[in-house]
Amino acid sequence: MTDQPSYPITPTNRIKRAHERAAYDHASVHAILDAAALCHVAYVIDDQPYATPTMFWREGSRLYWHGSAASRMIKTIRQGVKACVTVTHFDGLVIARSGFHHSANYRTVMAFGTARLLDDPDEKYAAQIAMVDRLFPGRTEGLRKVTDQELKATSFIYMDIESAAAKVRTGTVKDDEEDYALPIHAEIIPIHTTLGTPEPCPRSHTEAARGADLDLYSDGSSLEGALTQAYGETFD
Amino acid sequence: MTDQPSYPITPTNRIKRAHERAAYDHASVHAILDAAALCHVAYVIDDQPYATPTMFWREGSRLYWHGSAASRMIKTIRQGVKACVTVTHFDGLVIARSGFHHSANYRTVMAFGTARLLDDPDEKYAAQIAMVDRLFPGRTEGLRKVTDQELKATSFIYMDIESAAAKVRTGTVKDDEEDYALPIHAEIIPIHTTLGTPEPCPRSHTEAARGADLDLYSDGSSLEGALTQAYGETFD
Repeated sequence: MTDQPSYPITPTNRIKRAHERAAYDHASVHAILDAAALCHVAYVIDDQPYATPTMFWREGSRLYWHGSAASRMIKTIRQGVKACVTVTHFDGLVIARSGFHHSANYRTVMAFGTARLLDDPDEKYAAQIAMVDRLFPGRTEGLRKVTDQELKATSFIYMDIESAAAKVRTGTVKDDEEDYALPIHAEIIPIHTTLGTPEPCPRSHTEAARGADLDLYSDGSSLEGALTQAYGETFD
Repeated sequence: MTDQPSYPITPTNRIKRAHERAAYDHASVHAILDAAALCHVAYVIDDQPYATPTMFWREGSRLYWHGSAASRMIKTIRQGVKACVTVTHFDGLVIARSGFHHSANYRTVMAFGTARLLDDPDEKYAAQIAMVDRLFPGRTEGLRKVTDQELKATSFIYMDIESAAAKVRTGTVKDDEEDYALPIHAEIIPIHTTLGTPEPCPRSHTEAARGADLDLYSDGSSLEGALTQAYGETFD
């Protein structure tokens, strides 16, 4: 433990298994969140849990995501509902000498709180900028302006993180001590998530040119590298 | 709609928004599941929803995953609990001419059912083989054998899919018709998830050699390609 700012450890977020892989400090939790654009939100409707994938972003200890006003999640969330936002980076396959030591390298955050609708029009206006600029710094300025109708038809949801936990597995294979003597091959296979060649819209205007807002997103570069750097340029 | 086998469409799994992107047939749903090793499981403990990342695999219309008998999820699931298993492939960034048309290309499945503990020892024994061989065809045969103690300490969970929905966004940017005339750059950036250079365990036995069970997992190849092919070799 350090004296860095940390999320409180509660019965909800306390890591019980492999707790040596856990972290609760803001820096560890936020680094995993800000390297991602995709999360899974868990919430409950009529006793049925859902894990819904969606794009999200963070500001301080608040997470944001958006959806159509017609969606199932948005209708449920109007009064404020308990939610869990999970982000997972799948970093590698761990191939061991016995079945149960096969594993994965990963970095994950589970963040807990109450998801609520963003009602204030000014906050909604700011959110639609942050949603894009978090990915592509400064991009909103060059876009067709948002309309009142679009803002009305879209709901933004926010969740203040009440507790959160990061869990990370990294490094090489871990086998039972006596199994290292066996002539069984074991290895880690790293997993890389990278950007491909951009495909311009076939209906592009002849004067439309790729701008500096997309510079971080070059062919072959790391998705999480671009996301982390874009986040820093917009929010830090 | 085709006359292929399909999961029933219920109020739980019916896609309400952008329903033209939805599919319910077994082939569409299973292809998305079998191209993945990682899922997020939503479940509820004491009114708190959780989205927990875990490795999983499919056999027929049944999904399996495992965890330590001490974990929060396993303790909860003992009596059978409603769950949602979600798999998401993040395929690309969609960069449009207006903020709200920014989007993602993706393939996702949400599968619903009741998660239950696998109690039968023979079924548990079979599950620990499938768990590894689903990833690395035939690998279990060359491993140090599972012990009774390991089997006892590990719980397997299964969920028969009662309903499921696939949702896919693919293709290029979609903007409002009048916005195509604007000189604003728009593009798709594909996202690729690939395998890196295998890193043998530093404590490897001198006679240990990489076997055919790992042939699909070569440097630079597609993760989902390897997972899909491995799945087919083991189960089809």
